Amino acid sequence: MQNPVIDVLRNHRSIRKFSPQTLSDDLLDQLVLAGQAASSSSFVQAYSIIDICDPEIRQQLQRCCSNQAYVGEAARFLVFCADFHRLQLAAEFQGIDPELGFTEQFLAASIDAALVAQNIIVAAESVGLGGVYIGAIRNKPKQVTEILALPEQVFALFGMCLGYPDQNPEIKPRLPAQVVLHRDVYNATQYTRELDNYDRVTAQYYTQRTQGAVTTGWSQQMAEKLGKESRPDLLEHLQSQGLAKR
Amino acid sequence: MQNPVIDVLRNHRSIRKFSPQTLSDDLLDQLVLAGQAASSSSFVQAYSIIDICDPEIRQQLQRCCSNQAYVGEAARFLVFCADFHRLQLAAEFQGIDPELGFTEQFLAASIDAALVAQNIIVAAESVGLGGVYIGAIRNKPKQVTEILALPEQVFALFGMCLGYPDQNPEIKPRLPAQVVLHRDVYNATQYTRELDNYDRVTAQYYTQRTQGAVTTGWSQQMAEKLGKESRPDLLEHLQSQGLAKR
Repeated sequence: MQNPVIDVLRNHRSIRKFSPQTLSDDLLDQLVLAGQAASSSSFVQAYSIIDICDPEIRQQLQRCCSNQAYVGEAARFLVFCADFHRLQLAAEFQGIDPELGFTEQFLAASIDAALVAQNIIVAAESVGLGGVYIGAIRNKPKQVTEILALPEQVFALFGMCLGYPDQNPEIKPRLPAQVVLHRDVYNATQYTRELDNYDRVTAQYYTQRTQGAVTTGWSQQMAEKLGKESRPDLLEHLQSQGLAKR
Repeated sequence: MQNPVIDVLRNHRSIRKFSPQTLSDDLLDQLVLAGQAASSSSFVQAYSIIDICDPEIRQQLQRCCSNQAYVGEAARFLVFCADFHRLQLAAEFQGIDPELGFTEQFLAASIDAALVAQNIIVAAESVGLGGVYIGAIRNKPKQVTEILALPEQVFALFGMCLGYPDQNPEIKPRLPAQVVLHRDVYNATQYTRELDNYDRVTAQYYTQRTQGAVTTGWSQQMAEKLGKESRPDLLEHLQSQGLAKR
């Protein structure tokens, strides 16, 4: 099925190399409006976006993000935050002492932010921009919180680089649809066979893309990742921000 | 700025009333492919989608979701799950004993699922369908887990009704862009003035939409919501699924 919207969605590649062309404030505002149009859980709109313009702050964040060069190089670097601080203030303005710290609130805020971000990257790609999500902003949550002066109830979920692409990578093969789409109940019976096929496809993809530097398939890469701890200081940081405490 | 993609994004309204027209398996598969094209954190693709076709299961879920009629009535009802079960199996197939239960993993999975879902609803709207996210699936996480036979490491994040619209609601006014978009650092100084304006706009919107049944603005509604506990059993349930434990 083809239409201009589905074409943009299906054509997504993460872009990590950008031309020097800038991205105007006007265009950014349009992208943000498209982002804001996404659904929000009970309309809480529990997200904030921080547009990092100051080169010094950008450099500090790049260092927090495993020093990924594109964090510094992209025309724009946005940080998407789960944000219950604004809601806390709104409640207090109304004379209500808010009940905060629920995992439900943090989850709703995180999903809100993700929906907004996805609209923004889709809108960006529709006008010829490219981008990449930066999960590495969660590497050093305490430093990022200080750099961005995040108050309690705010957490930097992920970054996003945006700019005009200076590369044209292949589309990465996704899991077979029958692996992610279940009918009526969760069904893992097809995993063994399908993952086996998928591992062959992805091994070929990585071998080609990295000129043989990476030859492993998806399962092997995932196994390696899951063999290690995964940002073990995150929960403590969230709770120090007053989030996900109960 | 206008193009067919941004038009679809900006035109989003949640649809809760559907015509009896069905949504074919072929079309659903196309929507899922568009969803899968979204970015994934370290390519973990840590989500599953359950397409609820069985009318009895649909009814059971509707009862879990505050009995929202559209959960039963929509042409399709999809449940989006954070899913580390598939990754756990993939690791075990490779002979690795996976490190699980990190909040980071649950968060990455939740964001993965949200990005996929947003692509799906955008693709759906681009072909004349409408839909609504169903956060109420988190009302009764234990029952939902049983109904859907979710294994450990899987959690039902939200549902989504999809179908052909039988209503044409107004677009709900979002927070002013300057409230959600910050520059360089988090900045709450504009909240008081802007929220005041926004409360007037939203009070007018709700008064009109509900023929005077609801006359409160956004801050007042949020304050009322935050005055109460927010799904206090969620964290315990997540942890009983082996998620967000550390």
